[in-house]
Amino acid sequence: MSKTVPVGVSARHIHLTQEHIEILFGKGYQLTEFKPLSQPGQFAANEQVAVIGPKGQFEKVRILGPARSASQVEISRTDSFAIGVKAPVRESGNIEGTPGVTVKGPAGQIELEKGVIVAARHIHFHTSDAEKWGVKDKQLLKVRLGGERGLVLENVIARVSDNFALDMHIDTDEANAAGAKTGDIAEIVE
Amino acid sequence: MSKTVPVGVSARHIHLTQEHIEILFGKGYQLTEFKPLSQPGQFAANEQVAVIGPKGQFEKVRILGPARSASQVEISRTDSFAIGVKAPVRESGNIEGTPGVTVKGPAGQIELEKGVIVAARHIHFHTSDAEKWGVKDKQLLKVRLGGERGLVLENVIARVSDNFALDMHIDTDEANAAGAKTGDIAEIVE
Repeated sequence: MSKTVPVGVSARHIHLTQEHIEILFGKGYQLTEFKPLSQPGQFAANEQVAVIGPKGQFEKVRILGPARSASQVEISRTDSFAIGVKAPVRESGNIEGTPGVTVKGPAGQIELEKGVIVAARHIHFHTSDAEKWGVKDKQLLKVRLGGERGLVLENVIARVSDNFALDMHIDTDEANAAGAKTGDIAEIVE
Repeated sequence: MSKTVPVGVSARHIHLTQEHIEILFGKGYQLTEFKPLSQPGQFAANEQVAVIGPKGQFEKVRILGPARSASQVEISRTDSFAIGVKAPVRESGNIEGTPGVTVKGPAGQIELEKGVIVAARHIHFHTSDAEKWGVKDKQLLKVRLGGERGLVLENVIARVSDNFALDMHIDTDEANAAGAKTGDIAEIVE
């Protein structure tokens, strides 16, 4: 049985606490939805902020909603060199000891003390998909992307939940190295 | 027998004809050496040029010498999105049907009609290395880069010559996807 998974390419983006949203956009401000994401309840917001590092900045970084309990900036390794922030590869939410960055919105700016990461590649499995294929939460998988720049990604983290929809998340470096785009199909090979 | 190869990460760069060098830098101008490259006789020049596409530009793109019979710009897929030039994956020298770009130097500028490529990943083998490992010129190999972002690159082209030194050339997207840097060691796995 071939274990195929749709690919979602994550461009640089930011998650914010409600407190930080209000500093950046004004008191009582609520994010507005630009478009839904693959995971239920998650959305790309209309709102964007500037992310400013010691060597460069990105003027328009998309906020992903809803608001979270901790702010987190997800960039590629290419981005990390461009702005001069040494972001480690981490799972989302695991931000202890990570570097910070300046974030600027129309109403104010914040100095994040931590939270800049390169997101570790991962696959969201609905519990039923994981059971069908014998995949366990936190298992490390090997996943093949085909084509002229074909490659096999190792250490792809399985994340299993009833709240997830089947989707593999890779960043723009991984997508560009593979010549892949959102909607392509990857195969779990091990 | 483990078949290990040193990794060389190629940042965006340009090769120029002597005619184009003279348009960009002045009549009779000769490139000057900044540092030698891994392949015998090849060097990074002190000289840099701007590469200008419809959506963006890179101000300082390193010229690699010596002068060649055709000008060629090598960028990453990330770069191709940044400047708005749809560069295909090609072997060096195979530039028929590729897009062009504007190149600007201190003395003038040129409109390249073609020559912008994403370099296909490849390994330079000295003939003796290739014979030792049973690798043929143009053979497609699978090569593993280890570490937390470990991956196996497929379709790595073998290039065999008495003029080559053993080195695998990947671009910055591939290096960043793998968390690899120049001087790392890769393994030919198939």
